[in-house]
Amino acid sequence: MSQTRREFLAFLSAVPLASLGDRPDSADGLPGTMVVNGERLRRHLEGLSLFGRQADGTFASGVSRVGYSDADVAGRSYAMDLMRQAGIEPRVDAAGNILARRPGTDDSLAPLLFGSHIDSVPNGGNFDGDLGSLAAIEVIQTLRERNMTTRRPLEIVVWANEEGFAFGNGLCGSRAAAGQLVEGELDHVWNGGKKADAIRRIGGHPDRISEARRTPGSFACYLELHIEQGGTLDRAGIPIGVVEGIVSIDRYEVTIRGMANHAGTTPMPDRRDALIAASHVAIAVNEIVTSEPGRQVGTVGQLVVVPNAPNVIPGLVRHTIELRDLSADKIRRLADLVRSRARDIATRTKTTIEITHSSHHEGAMATPEIQAIIEKAAAAVSLPSQRMPSGAGHDAQMMATLGPMGMIFVPSVGGISHSPQELSRWEDCTRGAEVLLRSVLLLSR
Amino acid sequence: MSQTRREFLAFLSAVPLASLGDRPDSADGLPGTMVVNGERLRRHLEGLSLFGRQADGTFASGVSRVGYSDADVAGRSYAMDLMRQAGIEPRVDAAGNILARRPGTDDSLAPLLFGSHIDSVPNGGNFDGDLGSLAAIEVIQTLRERNMTTRRPLEIVVWANEEGFAFGNGLCGSRAAAGQLVEGELDHVWNGGKKADAIRRIGGHPDRISEARRTPGSFACYLELHIEQGGTLDRAGIPIGVVEGIVSIDRYEVTIRGMANHAGTTPMPDRRDALIAASHVAIAVNEIVTSEPGRQVGTVGQLVVVPNAPNVIPGLVRHTIELRDLSADKIRRLADLVRSRARDIATRTKTTIEITHSSHHEGAMATPEIQAIIEKAAAAVSLPSQRMPSGAGHDAQMMATLGPMGMIFVPSVGGISHSPQELSRWEDCTRGAEVLLRSVLLLSR
Repeated sequence: MSQTRREFLAFLSAVPLASLGDRPDSADGLPGTMVVNGERLRRHLEGLSLFGRQADGTFASGVSRVGYSDADVAGRSYAMDLMRQAGIEPRVDAAGNILARRPGTDDSLAPLLFGSHIDSVPNGGNFDGDLGSLAAIEVIQTLRERNMTTRRPLEIVVWANEEGFAFGNGLCGSRAAAGQLVEGELDHVWNGGKKADAIRRIGGHPDRISEARRTPGSFACYLELHIEQGGTLDRAGIPIGVVEGIVSIDRYEVTIRGMANHAGTTPMPDRRDALIAASHVAIAVNEIVTSEPGRQVGTVGQLVVVPNAPNVIPGLVRHTIELRDLSADKIRRLADLVRSRARDIATRTKTTIEITHSSHHEGAMATPEIQAIIEKAAAAVSLPSQRMPSGAGHDAQMMATLGPMGMIFVPSVGGISHSPQELSRWEDCTRGAEVLLRSVLLLSR
Repeated sequence: MSQTRREFLAFLSAVPLASLGDRPDSADGLPGTMVVNGERLRRHLEGLSLFGRQADGTFASGVSRVGYSDADVAGRSYAMDLMRQAGIEPRVDAAGNILARRPGTDDSLAPLLFGSHIDSVPNGGNFDGDLGSLAAIEVIQTLRERNMTTRRPLEIVVWANEEGFAFGNGLCGSRAAAGQLVEGELDHVWNGGKKADAIRRIGGHPDRISEARRTPGSFACYLELHIEQGGTLDRAGIPIGVVEGIVSIDRYEVTIRGMANHAGTTPMPDRRDALIAASHVAIAVNEIVTSEPGRQVGTVGQLVVVPNAPNVIPGLVRHTIELRDLSADKIRRLADLVRSRARDIATRTKTTIEITHSSHHEGAMATPEIQAIIEKAAAAVSLPSQRMPSGAGHDAQMMATLGPMGMIFVPSVGGISHSPQELSRWEDCTRGAEVLLRSVLLLSR
């Protein structure tokens, strides 16, 4: 543990948490009612939704703002304008992350870092990442309007390519900051272009990517507001989730080779159908993951057939497998079971099945003291909260490798995310931003 | 049966078949050795393979010459040049079929029609359709060099969009000739364009498509040389197949709707995964088709996942089902079994599964008298032959609705087709062209 971290945690322990709920107005310098501007936050979220908006043209039709795409570049420009309006000047680091700093009264202290991302999956929603990014700006704007200066400097961040649809590996900006890019990653090719060039598109400098690295002492702690993306809070009717930890994620690339052949003249027993094999693998993943108790999940989300014609037996299928659980050991064990089943399937279907481990995102536990601070911040404005794990990966898990980390969740209606139907009620968005503001104030004293 | 057809069949019955094998040199006016120019036929096939050739650039890398594509337009132009070199002038009919006529000594007689197609599936081979089309030209070229004129006029044809990868329904040119286009077919949209415009691209006139229609008396009989596309002849070591009939083909479009959602935050029991449902359907098709005796085949060849990202549960899958058998009733019954299984799968996976019948190609029996002629033509050059069904659909089945029909098969090495590995030995191509030539001579006396 670094010197700074140890000192910061000692400071946290000294915060009179028990008193916050009783005298919220004195604990963070704000009244016991919400002070962020929910109307402005909504306007900004609706504004951001224009970049990558789907063809049918409404907010509800969702957004395709894949990292490094034109829509991403345009959305980032919009976010940077909002930062300027909030009185802080954005800069883009070597990995393409957008950072902006607001001075504190003691600039010798490490800043409090908070933010999220604005890239989306294809056909995604308007809240995943966007809320945490624009709420961070809203916090700065609110402090400015109230002429409040924190003791610690504040630093907000919009991480690059969190979703990882482009180049098949997410948390790109925060991994660069944590020094966890993989060997040769900048040379990876996707859609005919190299990752290094994609990073240049968003203003980064891949040739000096190491400059994006943060040291363990470079921030006091990291906070991220995010939509839950699952249905736990919505079902329970609780507006604030306090994240206990983030699951580990393993991704695999599966390549199944059969033999492309005429769908009319090739007798059934002579076939080597790669799609039949892939169907068995997809079902096996589902069966293996659900065959033991726990919250682990497994998904075949991407699948491509070659040559993909109605009258040709599929000769080649490529698909992904993604496994998630708080226990990294458990998903490694589940992957072994999948490999074993795949060997049987390959024999039975006369195909070859190659399973390559393409990425591992190590989960992370949130700092217990910060969980307590978030609970108290919620209580200060009379919002019930609940502790819960995060089934989704977040940039916060990378920051957890460098310093204390905490995350705030707000409800996703119906638990729907990565979909145009993704929705968090505006009042819940405002509540989340308010809890973020108060957590920032409590942590930056 | 039309007057012409009845007369032609009466003529066929009068041909002294028994004598042909004994005195081949006198029966068709040619010596008992092969006379087509196999070297030239090979050169022409290699020439045609340049249009739509795959990126790696060799004949063996196959061809993507989808109907109406640029590659198709270029290949058609090449074929028309070959016709001109053989002394016949091509014309393009309203449906985009290429036709060219060689006069007979009695032009009051209906012509003998023969040919095939030159469009391919994506990543297809260099023999499917190409052989029958270019062998038809080779027959004309050979007759010209030998100064032979048949009694009946000859007409050769290159049918438009046989494979039907474009617009999802094949035999387009021959269906237009048989008056079997489906209601509204010219308005069908594929790849952002209408079928009418696609037909215009290849020189057709969709606004007067009915002009492409042939009447039952407009040709004496139809012949087509084709690669087998299955492995029967190759395994048996027999160079010539005499087709008994062509299977019926039904195609279905399946749309499976689940719910796109985050692959990390959606617990397994809450999922409505369209790809899991599709996997069960693909396996069900395979099981149902193989669960009873017979030569029927069933294929899920095309499948698309939406949104197709590693970290999103598939919300939508569209895929095809294709069923084939000589018995149209049998494949209708099998489709009913698939529908029934799909209902269970939909319930079990909390998805909706919609199965739409997108096309039916009625099979056809080859005319027995023409089968006998082909056998005799093969025997005239001492080539063993074997009667067999065709598991693939062919334009010949449309012509069978208008008049007598026969098909000649040559072996496909390893039974591989609709694949870059598709291969028919050059000597077998030459043999097929020779049998086509002799059948034409026997039938056009």
